[in-house]
Amino acid sequence: MGQQTNNDLIGNLIDNLCKLPSIGKKSAQRLAYFLLNHDEQKVENLANAILNARKNIKKCTICYNYAEEEFCPICLSASQGLRQTELICVIEKPSDILLLEKFGGYRGVYHVLGGTLSPLDGIGPANLTINSLISRLHSLDSPELVFALNTNTDGEATVMYLINKIKSLPVKISRLARGMPIGSDLQYIDEITMQKALENRVLL
Amino acid sequence: MGQQTNNDLIGNLIDNLCKLPSIGKKSAQRLAYFLLNHDEQKVENLANAILNARKNIKKCTICYNYAEEEFCPICLSASQGLRQTELICVIEKPSDILLLEKFGGYRGVYHVLGGTLSPLDGIGPANLTINSLISRLHSLDSPELVFALNTNTDGEATVMYLINKIKSLPVKISRLARGMPIGSDLQYIDEITMQKALENRVLL
Repeated sequence: MGQQTNNDLIGNLIDNLCKLPSIGKKSAQRLAYFLLNHDEQKVENLANAILNARKNIKKCTICYNYAEEEFCPICLSASQGLRQTELICVIEKPSDILLLEKFGGYRGVYHVLGGTLSPLDGIGPANLTINSLISRLHSLDSPELVFALNTNTDGEATVMYLINKIKSLPVKISRLARGMPIGSDLQYIDEITMQKALENRVLL
Repeated sequence: MGQQTNNDLIGNLIDNLCKLPSIGKKSAQRLAYFLLNHDEQKVENLANAILNARKNIKKCTICYNYAEEEFCPICLSASQGLRQTELICVIEKPSDILLLEKFGGYRGVYHVLGGTLSPLDGIGPANLTINSLISRLHSLDSPELVFALNTNTDGEATVMYLINKIKSLPVKISRLARGMPIGSDLQYIDEITMQKALENRVLL
């Protein structure tokens, strides 16, 4: 592989591309050679988009979604009365919001937990945004939580933990209807199923 | 899709990632959210690797492979007597060199044509590095060309054109043995088949 050990710029680019999820050695090579041959301005735009997004994106101080300012666009709409602040959908990570927003029927807000409880990976309650969720619930008159975690063991255990934690509060608790196939991942659910699952959310 | 139209940094990142080959909307979203959540230093390394490679990689003045200096590593080895300068493998694009170098048995050099003749796409002889290939042949005592273009119509036509163009020169001409399945692309050929195809290259 004389090409790669000697040509440091290309080798370095390929090595860096390999670290991206689902990009193997071959895809990284293809991407690298594409970039080398691509319009220089467009390649600069890509690199700057990566840098700017990574450097300037913060977490929303209310819901922990990604945000450019103090609040994310969804919490901002809610503060303007365009969404229900009392209805909070609890999700694992910011990208789950994209999936739930896709069908356009949900008018509540979100709370990004930052993962699920997973003792084997060393993720306990302190690693998630649980305390700040509880503060949010305290600040609302008649809050309702909709759990939309993945339906695997860790997701279920996290829901159980949270229900136990907030059972003394006057909170209506629901979860996505079990239209979701058990053991599946949120991102593989189509929009209609997602809509049904939200409509038929079950009070716990 | 409030998330994307409002969150310009993320939307812009996703749009830029979408322009990469074989990265669709969903993959771009997944990559973007991965990057936002990834170690900042590593994300910077990736962006810089892209910028540096695109800005500093040139074409080798002999063979048109990508190079950091005037000559690519392969032409450099050849100038030090480590590879045969008289045996020139003619390929379409720089990334084809990776495929041929992979099995490690080829000791000649390369010539990157920059594509194949394709009148429908407006690619004629002047768009390829044909003149510089002919100058190379003139400068050598007993050159041999091995054609390793893809075996589709454009590739075959290009080989025919080149053979016709250089038939007056004292050049030995061969091509990869037809171990290659007809109509296939160079990148899907395994190393053993590639080795056999080179060993059994056929004089034309």
